[in-house]
Amino acid sequence: MKPLESLGLRHDGRRLWILDQTQLPDREVWLDAGDPDAMVTHIQQLRVRGAPLIGVAAALSLAWLAEQGAGADAVRAAAARLRAARPTAVNLMLAVDRMLGAIAPDLAPALTAEAERIFDEDVRLCESMAAAGAALLQSGDSVLTHCNTGGLATAGIGTALGVVRRAFEHGVRLHVYVDETRPLLQGARLTTWELGRLGIPYTLIADSMAPILMREGKVQRVLVGADRIARNGDVANKVGTYALAISARHHDVPFHVVAPWTTVDLACPDGGRIPIEQRAAAEVHGATGSFGAVRWSDEAAPAFNPAFDVTPAAMLTSLVLDRGIVPRDALLADGLARLAHRAPSAL
Amino acid sequence: MKPLESLGLRHDGRRLWILDQTQLPDREVWLDAGDPDAMVTHIQQLRVRGAPLIGVAAALSLAWLAEQGAGADAVRAAAARLRAARPTAVNLMLAVDRMLGAIAPDLAPALTAEAERIFDEDVRLCESMAAAGAALLQSGDSVLTHCNTGGLATAGIGTALGVVRRAFEHGVRLHVYVDETRPLLQGARLTTWELGRLGIPYTLIADSMAPILMREGKVQRVLVGADRIARNGDVANKVGTYALAISARHHDVPFHVVAPWTTVDLACPDGGRIPIEQRAAAEVHGATGSFGAVRWSDEAAPAFNPAFDVTPAAMLTSLVLDRGIVPRDALLADGLARLAHRAPSAL
Repeated sequence: MKPLESLGLRHDGRRLWILDQTQLPDREVWLDAGDPDAMVTHIQQLRVRGAPLIGVAAALSLAWLAEQGAGADAVRAAAARLRAARPTAVNLMLAVDRMLGAIAPDLAPALTAEAERIFDEDVRLCESMAAAGAALLQSGDSVLTHCNTGGLATAGIGTALGVVRRAFEHGVRLHVYVDETRPLLQGARLTTWELGRLGIPYTLIADSMAPILMREGKVQRVLVGADRIARNGDVANKVGTYALAISARHHDVPFHVVAPWTTVDLACPDGGRIPIEQRAAAEVHGATGSFGAVRWSDEAAPAFNPAFDVTPAAMLTSLVLDRGIVPRDALLADGLARLAHRAPSAL
Repeated sequence: MKPLESLGLRHDGRRLWILDQTQLPDREVWLDAGDPDAMVTHIQQLRVRGAPLIGVAAALSLAWLAEQGAGADAVRAAAARLRAARPTAVNLMLAVDRMLGAIAPDLAPALTAEAERIFDEDVRLCESMAAAGAALLQSGDSVLTHCNTGGLATAGIGTALGVVRRAFEHGVRLHVYVDETRPLLQGARLTTWELGRLGIPYTLIADSMAPILMREGKVQRVLVGADRIARNGDVANKVGTYALAISARHHDVPFHVVAPWTTVDLACPDGGRIPIEQRAAAEVHGATGSFGAVRWSDEAAPAFNPAFDVTPAAMLTSLVLDRGIVPRDALLADGLARLAHRAPSAL
C-alpha cells in the first residue's frame, strides 16, 4: 500500500490508523485500525464516521487483511462483517462490494490497488463537489450546516463543508452557522474544530435555533451531506436534517445536499426503503465523549433515537454531486438513474 | 403567610423555599429563598423557573421581606431588582407590579394577602386551562411537548402539561413525546421526572427528531407553554418552540399554546417587541447540572444562545387560556385585547 493520509485516516504503507473522532476536539488520538474486526468496532462506535470515510476505511482494512496473508475466504468473511457494521450509509456497502469484486488470484496486490483507487477517487469526488458547489456561494453569505461533512467525513476536503472550504479559499467571505447536532454532537465537536483550523468564522447553535436565524434573514443557504440518496432523490442524512429542510422551505432559504455519487443507491427506489439505524437510548439520556460522560435523564427513560432521517427530494433546492448540480425540477422529473454513466466533474 | 405548597415552591408560614430545579432529576434540594436578592439569583440561575412560577416566587419573596419588617422603600427597591431578573416572561413583571400596587400603610399584611392571592390565583388559572384544554385530547393520542410546563413551572398543575395531566386523570389514554429542550434540558430533566411521577407514558427525544414523529403520524397535537404573549397573539416561548410550530404546520399537526392570562402582555403589540433573553455561550458549549459539568466545544467557540423564540399567531391552531380557547381565526381577527375583561373559566 502506498502511504495515504487524510484528516481522519492514515496508512504508512504497513499499518492503517484512524483518528478517534469520539475524542475530538479534546485529544488527537490515532488508533490502529487495520484488522477488520477492530474496524467494525471503530465504525460502530463512530470513532471513524462520515458516509464516504467509512467506505474508504472498510476498503483499506480489507486490503490490510490481504496484505497480512489472509486468503479470499477470510477476506469475504471480514467483508460481510464490515458491510453490516452500520446500515444506513450506502458508501460502506458499495466500497466493500467493490473490494469483493476485485478479488483475484494475486489477492493482496489486487485488493491494495482497489483500496488505493477508492481512497484516491473519494479525494477527487470531493474536489468535484467543491468545484460545483462553490459557485453557489457569494461574499457575505452565511451558510448553515449540520453534523460534520468536512475532512473528517471523507478522504478529501469533505462534502458540504468542502464546498464551504473551497469557496473560502477562493476569497469568498463566508460565515458558517453550525448545528450542534444532538445527540452525538458532531457539529459542536467536529465541525467547529475543522472550521477553527481553517480559520473560517462560525457560530455554534443548538439545533432548534436554526429557524430563528432563517427568519431573521441571517442564513443564505443550508448545505448538508448525505448518508444514502435513493433513486428518486430522497436523502437520508444525520437526524435533524429533515427539520432543517422544513424550516428552510418555510423561510425560502435554499437547501442543498452535497454528496458524491458513491452515496447514491440506484437500487433503492425512494427514501421509505432506506434502512434507518436506531441507536441506544443512552445516547439521548446524556452525552459521552473524551470530555466525560453525563446522564441527565433517568437511565430507564424510554427514548427514540434514530441516527438518520429522510428528506424528500421535493424539499431540496438542488443536489450537488461530483457529476454536477441537479436542480429540484430535474430531480423530480427524472430521478438519478439517468446520471449513472455521467463522468465526475462533467459540469 | 398561610402555608403554601406547590411542586417547586413551599412557604411554611415563616420561611419560603424553592426546589432547586437545576438539581433535578438527581436530587430534591430545597433552598431558602425568602430574601429577594437570593431569589433574584435563583431566578437567573433557573433554580426556580417557569413563567408563572417565577412571578409567584417573586411576589412571595416581597411579602417575606415585608414580614421581616422592611419598609415600603426597601420593598420597592427589591421589587425593581426582581422585576429585572429575567426579561422575557411577563408574568414576573406583572406579579411584581401587583405587589407594588398593594403597598399600603399596614405593609406586611397587605403584601402577604396579595402574594397569597397571586399564588392561589395561579393554581386556579391552571385548573381553568386544564379544563379547557383537556377536551382537545382523545384516548390514543400522542402529544408532543417542549421544555417543562407542569407543576414545576407554575403554582398549580401546569399549563400544557397540566392539560395532559387532567386528561390522563380523566381516563384519556395518552402518550407524551418529550423534547429534551437544548441547551438547558428542561424536557429531559424535568418533564420526564414529572411524567414519571404521574405515571403518564412518555418517550424522550432530541429536539430535532420531532418532525420525524410528525411525518410518521405519531403526533396528534403539539402542546407548549408561553413566556409572553403579545396583544396580536404572537407567542414568546422556550427556544425550539418556533421550530416545532413550523414542523407542525408542515405536517398539519394541531399546535396549541397553553397559558394563563398572566402571560398575556396587552401593552406589547406583537412578537417583534418582546425582549428575548440572550444567555451565555457556555450553555451551548456543553451541559451543566447536578449530573456534572461537561464541555464538548472549545470554550472560545462563538455561540448564539437566545433563551426564547417567537412563534407568530398565524401558526397557532389555538391559544388555550384560562378564559377559554381562542382559535387562530379569532386570534388573527381580533387579537387578545377583547378578552381583557372576560372572567377565567368563562368557557
